[in-house]
Amino acid sequence: MTSMEGGVTKPVGFKASGVHAGLKKNPENLDCALVMSEQICTVAGTFTKNVMKAAPVLWNMDVCERGKSWGVFINSGNANAATGKQGLSDVKDMAGFVASCGPIYPNDICICSTGVIGVLLPMDKIENGIDDCIDRLSEPGHSYAAKAIMTTDTVPKERAIDYEMGGRTVTLGGMAKGSGMISPNMATMISVITTDADIPHELLKPLTKEIVEISFNQIGVDNDMSTSDTVLVFANGMSGTPEIQVDSPEYEQFKEALTTICQELAKDIVKDGEGATKFVEISVTGAETDEDAKTITRAIGNSMLCKTAFFGQDPNWGRFACAAGYSGVQFNPEELSIALDSIVLCQNGQVAQYKEKDAAAIMLQPEFTIHISVGKGSGQAVFWTSDLSHDYVSINADYRS
Amino acid sequence: MTSMEGGVTKPVGFKASGVHAGLKKNPENLDCALVMSEQICTVAGTFTKNVMKAAPVLWNMDVCERGKSWGVFINSGNANAATGKQGLSDVKDMAGFVASCGPIYPNDICICSTGVIGVLLPMDKIENGIDDCIDRLSEPGHSYAAKAIMTTDTVPKERAIDYEMGGRTVTLGGMAKGSGMISPNMATMISVITTDADIPHELLKPLTKEIVEISFNQIGVDNDMSTSDTVLVFANGMSGTPEIQVDSPEYEQFKEALTTICQELAKDIVKDGEGATKFVEISVTGAETDEDAKTITRAIGNSMLCKTAFFGQDPNWGRFACAAGYSGVQFNPEELSIALDSIVLCQNGQVAQYKEKDAAAIMLQPEFTIHISVGKGSGQAVFWTSDLSHDYVSINADYRS
Repeated sequence: MTSMEGGVTKPVGFKASGVHAGLKKNPENLDCALVMSEQICTVAGTFTKNVMKAAPVLWNMDVCERGKSWGVFINSGNANAATGKQGLSDVKDMAGFVASCGPIYPNDICICSTGVIGVLLPMDKIENGIDDCIDRLSEPGHSYAAKAIMTTDTVPKERAIDYEMGGRTVTLGGMAKGSGMISPNMATMISVITTDADIPHELLKPLTKEIVEISFNQIGVDNDMSTSDTVLVFANGMSGTPEIQVDSPEYEQFKEALTTICQELAKDIVKDGEGATKFVEISVTGAETDEDAKTITRAIGNSMLCKTAFFGQDPNWGRFACAAGYSGVQFNPEELSIALDSIVLCQNGQVAQYKEKDAAAIMLQPEFTIHISVGKGSGQAVFWTSDLSHDYVSINADYRS
Repeated sequence: MTSMEGGVTKPVGFKASGVHAGLKKNPENLDCALVMSEQICTVAGTFTKNVMKAAPVLWNMDVCERGKSWGVFINSGNANAATGKQGLSDVKDMAGFVASCGPIYPNDICICSTGVIGVLLPMDKIENGIDDCIDRLSEPGHSYAAKAIMTTDTVPKERAIDYEMGGRTVTLGGMAKGSGMISPNMATMISVITTDADIPHELLKPLTKEIVEISFNQIGVDNDMSTSDTVLVFANGMSGTPEIQVDSPEYEQFKEALTTICQELAKDIVKDGEGATKFVEISVTGAETDEDAKTITRAIGNSMLCKTAFFGQDPNWGRFACAAGYSGVQFNPEELSIALDSIVLCQNGQVAQYKEKDAAAIMLQPEFTIHISVGKGSGQAVFWTSDLSHDYVSINADYRS
C-alpha cells in the first residue's frame, strides 16, 4: 500500500477541473470544481445530520440511495442552504447543466455547495462555471478542483494511494475541504474519494459509513455536522480487477486503503483548522463502552478552555479533567489518569510526580497526544483536534466582510 | 421592590470581609472572603453536576442537606479540585478555623474555593487568611468580600434589593463571581445570596433550585458546570417578619425578589464575560417543550461561530439557523424564523426582506436579542450569552502564566 502525490484523478478513468465563475470576489480564487468518471460509478455517501440540511445534501442523499453516479460538481462561496424550494430547484438545474456534457441523466450527478448560508445561488454564474468546468476536464485538473472547493482553507488537501491486487493496481484518490475543525459544530466539511476498484453498492454503502466513523467523524463532525457536510465515494471499476466480494481478502485490502485515505484527509483538515497552530490527538481508554470514550474525547476536543490551553502551550490538565467530568459520562474521579505523550500528569484523580518544564516542553511541539484513562473498561476512542487561537477569532469574525 | 447599592451585608445581621492571604501573587489582589450571620441561617444551595466535583462542593452539599449554616468562607486562586482525600481533609480544617470565631460547629460552615485545579491548598496561608477575615468582619466589608472572590472577573458583582412586608422591610443581598460565560463549560461561577427573610428549609431548598434554573442556569451552567459551581442562599430571619408559608402572598413576594437578584447577578456575570464586548439574549419560542427551546438557545449561545459573529458584529443568521439545526431538537426547517430585535432576517426557513445595514446596525449595539421561532408549540426559553473575542483567547491562553 503506497501513498503518493496526486488527487481525485489518480485512479483510472477520472478527470477533474476547477475554474473561477465569480462566486468569490477575487478572480484568482477558483470557486467551481467538477470531478467526472468515464464510466458510471457506484457511489456511496455520508451526510450531515443537521435538521437544516442544505438543498444539495437532500439531492445527493437521493443519488446515493440509487447508488449510481458519473461524478460531482462543487461550488464554493455559497452553501445553497436555508434557500427553500428555490434552492432545491437550483440543484436540479445544476445537475442538468452538468449532464449536458454527455448522454447521462441529471439524476446521476452529485452536487455540493459550501459557503454562506441563506443566500440564493447566482445561477447565471453557476451555469457559466459548469460549462467552463466541462471544457477543462483533464487529469492534471485534480489540483484545480482541490483549490476550487476551498473556503477558509489555507491549503488544498489531496491524497492518493494504491495497492496491488492479483497483479493489477487499485488506486484511490481524494480531496477534502474544511478548515473549521476548531469549530466542528458548523464549518462545512466536504470530501470526494475516487477509486477504480470494482465494488458493488451493497458493500460500498456500509463500508463508507463504517470508515467515515473512524476518520472524518473522529474530527468532530457527526451530530455537530454543518448544513452541508458530505463525504462521497465514487468507484468506477476501471482498474480491471474483479468485483470485490464481502469478507474476502480483497475486501480487507480495499477497506484498509479507504481507511488510510480518509484518515489522512481528516487529519489534513484538522492541521489546516482555522487559525490552528497545534494538532492534538485525544485518546481515551478504560471507559465502559467505545461510545462513552468517544463522548469524553469530544468534550475535551471541543472545549474552548482546553483549546486555548493548547494554544497557550499550557499543560493545564485540570481543564482536561474538568471537561471529562462534565462530558455526561459517569466515572469514578479516583480512577482518572491523564498523560501528555509519555508524561503522567494525573494519576488516580490526583496530581502525579512530574516536572512542569517537561510537560510544557511537550506542548511546545506542533503535535502531541493527550491520554485519558477513566477506569477499567475496554471502551476506547481517538479524536483529532486543533487549538483555539487569535486567528480563529479573526477568521470567523470577519468571514463575510 | 427596590434595587439599591450594597451587597451581602445589606440584610440585617450579616457581616463580611475580604483580605489578601498570598494565594494570588499580587498583594493588591484580595483572595479570601468571609460572610457571616449573627444568627444561624437556613441555607440552600445548588451545585455543579460535574463528576469531578471539587472537595468544597462535596462539603457544602452535606451542609445544605442539613440546612443550617452561619456563613461561608471563600478563597480564590486555588479550586481545591482534583485534590483527593487531602483536599477533603483541608476543607474540614478550613471549616474548623472559621468555627473558632464563636460557639459554632464546623459542620455549620460552608466553604468555597475557585481557581486552578489539581493543586493542594497552601493551608498555612489559608489559616492566616481565615484569621484575618474573622478580625475584619464588618458591614462595609461586603465590597472587600466581593473583590476577594474574583478570578478573571474585571469588576466585582454585587446586588441588593428590598421590599415591604406587613410594615417591615425584607432585604436580600448578593455577590457573584464568574467571568467565563463565553465558555460556560468550565469557568467557575460562585454566588452567595443573603437575606433576613424568615423561610424554612423545606421551602428555601426547592425555591432556590427553581430560581437558579431561570437565572444562573440560563447563562449556561447546568450540565456544563465546572468542578466548583455553587449558589448558596442564607436566610437568617432577622428582618422580624413572620415565617414565610408555602403558596402565600409573602412566598410570592420573596420569590420575586430572589428571582430578581439572581437574574441581575447572572446578567452581571455575562456582561463581565471573559473578553466580552456584547450581551446577547437568545429567545426561542414555538418549540414543542420548554426543554427543547432551552436546548436550542444553548446550541446557539455556546456556538463558537455564532459567538465570533457577535464579536464581528455580523448579522450572519445562517450560523444561528445552523446551530438550531444541529441542536438535536427536531423541527421543520420551513417553520424556522429568526429576528434580530425587531428585524426579521429569516421567515419560514428562507431569507426575509430586510436591509443588511439595518441588521448590522443592531449588532453594533452592546446589547441585542435574537428571536428564534421553530414552530407552533408553546415551549419557550431565554439564554444570556456574550461574544467570543480576541481577549477571550488571550485571557485563557495565558491563565496560569
